[in-house]
Amino acid sequence: MKLNDTIVALATPSGAGAIAIIRVSGPEAFNIVSPLFKAKSKKKLSKQPSHTLHLGNLMDDDRTLDEVLISIFRAPKSYTGEETVEISCHGSPYIQQEIIQLMIRKGCRSAEAGEFTMRAFLNGKMDLSQAEAVADLISSENQASHQMAMQQMRGGFSNEIHRLRQELLDFASLIELELDFSEEDVEFANRDQFKELVARIQQVLKRLIDSFATGNVLKNGIPVAIVGEPNVGKSTLLNSLLNEERAIVSEVAGTTRDSIEDEMSIGGVGFRFIDTAGIRETEDEVESIGIKRTFEKIGQAQVVMYLFDTSRFDELSEDNSSQGKISLAQLIVEIEKIKNQFPQKPLIIVPNKIDQLSEDSLLKLKESLGTISGTSLQLLSAKTGVGVEELKEKLLEFVNTGALRNNNTIVTNSRHYNALLKALEEINKVEEGLNTDLSGDLLAIDIREALEYFGEITGQVTNDELLGNIFSNFCIGK
Amino acid sequence: MKLNDTIVALATPSGAGAIAIIRVSGPEAFNIVSPLFKAKSKKKLSKQPSHTLHLGNLMDDDRTLDEVLISIFRAPKSYTGEETVEISCHGSPYIQQEIIQLMIRKGCRSAEAGEFTMRAFLNGKMDLSQAEAVADLISSENQASHQMAMQQMRGGFSNEIHRLRQELLDFASLIELELDFSEEDVEFANRDQFKELVARIQQVLKRLIDSFATGNVLKNGIPVAIVGEPNVGKSTLLNSLLNEERAIVSEVAGTTRDSIEDEMSIGGVGFRFIDTAGIRETEDEVESIGIKRTFEKIGQAQVVMYLFDTSRFDELSEDNSSQGKISLAQLIVEIEKIKNQFPQKPLIIVPNKIDQLSEDSLLKLKESLGTISGTSLQLLSAKTGVGVEELKEKLLEFVNTGALRNNNTIVTNSRHYNALLKALEEINKVEEGLNTDLSGDLLAIDIREALEYFGEITGQVTNDELLGNIFSNFCIGK
Repeated sequence: MKLNDTIVALATPSGAGAIAIIRVSGPEAFNIVSPLFKAKSKKKLSKQPSHTLHLGNLMDDDRTLDEVLISIFRAPKSYTGEETVEISCHGSPYIQQEIIQLMIRKGCRSAEAGEFTMRAFLNGKMDLSQAEAVADLISSENQASHQMAMQQMRGGFSNEIHRLRQELLDFASLIELELDFSEEDVEFANRDQFKELVARIQQVLKRLIDSFATGNVLKNGIPVAIVGEPNVGKSTLLNSLLNEERAIVSEVAGTTRDSIEDEMSIGGVGFRFIDTAGIRETEDEVESIGIKRTFEKIGQAQVVMYLFDTSRFDELSEDNSSQGKISLAQLIVEIEKIKNQFPQKPLIIVPNKIDQLSEDSLLKLKESLGTISGTSLQLLSAKTGVGVEELKEKLLEFVNTGALRNNNTIVTNSRHYNALLKALEEINKVEEGLNTDLSGDLLAIDIREALEYFGEITGQVTNDELLGNIFSNFCIGK
Repeated sequence: MKLNDTIVALATPSGAGAIAIIRVSGPEAFNIVSPLFKAKSKKKLSKQPSHTLHLGNLMDDDRTLDEVLISIFRAPKSYTGEETVEISCHGSPYIQQEIIQLMIRKGCRSAEAGEFTMRAFLNGKMDLSQAEAVADLISSENQASHQMAMQQMRGGFSNEIHRLRQELLDFASLIELELDFSEEDVEFANRDQFKELVARIQQVLKRLIDSFATGNVLKNGIPVAIVGEPNVGKSTLLNSLLNEERAIVSEVAGTTRDSIEDEMSIGGVGFRFIDTAGIRETEDEVESIGIKRTFEKIGQAQVVMYLFDTSRFDELSEDNSSQGKISLAQLIVEIEKIKNQFPQKPLIIVPNKIDQLSEDSLLKLKESLGTISGTSLQLLSAKTGVGVEELKEKLLEFVNTGALRNNNTIVTNSRHYNALLKALEEINKVEEGLNTDLSGDLLAIDIREALEYFGEITGQVTNDELLGNIFSNFCIGK
């Protein structure tokens, strides 16, 4: 955790673009960059005030590497809290690399993944959960995950934890003070007030722990399994969901659409649609690994959608099938099978291609399928768009976006989740100790344990290994 | 060519990174961005001086889109010469897109390819050849092409053209003035001085036109055809050339190495090695298209390298081959065949794997192969590295880097090349006219034609179609 050296890295995405930014941070930032920079204004870079921009040439001896724009940030008014120079150059990978190599020759060290943000944390510019939110923010792909990351980055989560930790710390100090006066049998810490605090902490911890399920789903997208034969209109459905939403993320990031999984954003929430059609056709040994993986994905699904083609539905027959058509009775048997296959998951029954159905048959469908317990029915014509909006609303109903809308704190990070679980465990011990009049010295141990887990979240308690794990997941240049 | 609207685009490469920059330029830049930005300092953005940086939140109504850093540039002190705001946001594609969409909703127009640079040109911030150099600079992949683009961007080329054009324009004016006084038979333009100028212009134009061959080669890399059977050590050779150079471009840009072409930078100059081994083995009809394409590539080669495995060289026999080995006489026949196949191209004979050869055989090789006219010999052990440095030097000898080293102007753009050719054609007509005492009115026409072509290079003479062609090759955001 050396902070006395000066680091350099490309901060913009790699590849060619109009502009690239190379970030230099550390005590020598100005001493290194200033002599290499010939400002158009002839002014000396190192003499300029913070938060100013300077146009000029970046020189490698008498060779002009590029015409650049330099942004300067004086410690502690920078992202890292250190002296920082950002070089905005022409976005050729060759130039980017030449400039980075020049900086390294002049004394910079190539930054490690997340090192700028780690320095921001170590210099007290943000706490650990805020630093973690920076990585979440960069990888956010829809409104929900973006909003959660923004909230965490702005300290919504850690402020709450920090406040509770402070209150708990005050009590811990009082109880430890009692120990010094143990022979006099005094009680500095009011036990009733302490019980009240413990109850409050338990409540907050439980709420945060519960929010993790929501947070995790919102962050990673809601998995929806689509059950149904091929050619029942799955692609048309996905396209009509996609088109109406004009899913920006998919367009921009070039989300790959493989054969079994499609991702899209509906109402600002990410959904992952898993096609299970393929797995029902083959019993081939060789394909079993692929099938197993698909089954695992279905196992994670939050919602199951049964899509079928109503043109295969025989409107005349009540219990016999003819010419590849299926009867109502057979359909209901099929649906019961799916219900058994995915117990405890909400099932949406989606009869597709209703535009090709007579009024009579539609009515019959509604009557027979609208009343199966544990399911909901959504008639659909993916082609004409009838029912698409309603299907979206049904999907969004399964997501608890209430907390998000109300700006409640949502836990999305499994590290935080685990620390919260451990903290609750310790707080429960403290509660038990208070109820059984445990001696102050033993009580103090449990409180210290709880404080430790609180501190782990915000980074007040930390170690090199933990930091290494967290920041190695960042990209270089952040 | 509307300049009264305000344009927006992502200026950094697309994809996820630590930072992305969104550029807003035009008369409404401040009016659009300022109300959306809540500065940490509470200061109003529109009141701030040029070339300053401001941290704050970018708001879409009461939703915080991102914590951003804003750079402001007041007209005409910006890249485009217009009011410009650059928004440095977290590098998530989702956030980038949300911010761009917000700007468009608030009145910006999505910028077209190269539109920022085109505005810089139209606002007189740079001439046309400088604007074109910006695109060259971004796509430069080695030191030579980078240096040529930098020189052009800094006006080295257009200054020269501009000066000559001005002198020519002065003479044109004098000659046209004579026409007004034609009845009086005066001569304002001194014909001797004019002849001297024409000669000087011819000289400069010829030098610039000649430099195009060098420039083109330096810009696109020197093509080198490698002739030789498979397994003679081509890969080892390319790797050892590559390793010693630590070719940064290839490492960073992830240059693809297909089976027949390898690119690398040697001494700051790009080389393209074309493997011709494949084409000599097959006579299959189906592969003929591929073979034809390879032959076309060889046709472009500036240098031919004949690489062969000396362990196949039979040191005992003088004219008979045994067990797949070849004799000296056969080798010389082979080399003559290659010389005939590629007449007029310099041929480097490269016996490889010399580490496996006896001193005696080495001497024999040198004696027999060192004297074949029109070829040069370079003994090599690609494995041990012996001869690699010397081979590099031999390759660089074929490149005229003298002009580059002496900072001479080099033409790299085929549009400029064509305009220079046309200008020379017209100037030659002017010379002829002067020598044959052509009447002033006819002379003036030729001079005007030449001036037109000069002006096309720097953009003093232009039209929408020309500009459209030039800037459509730029990336968006530049």
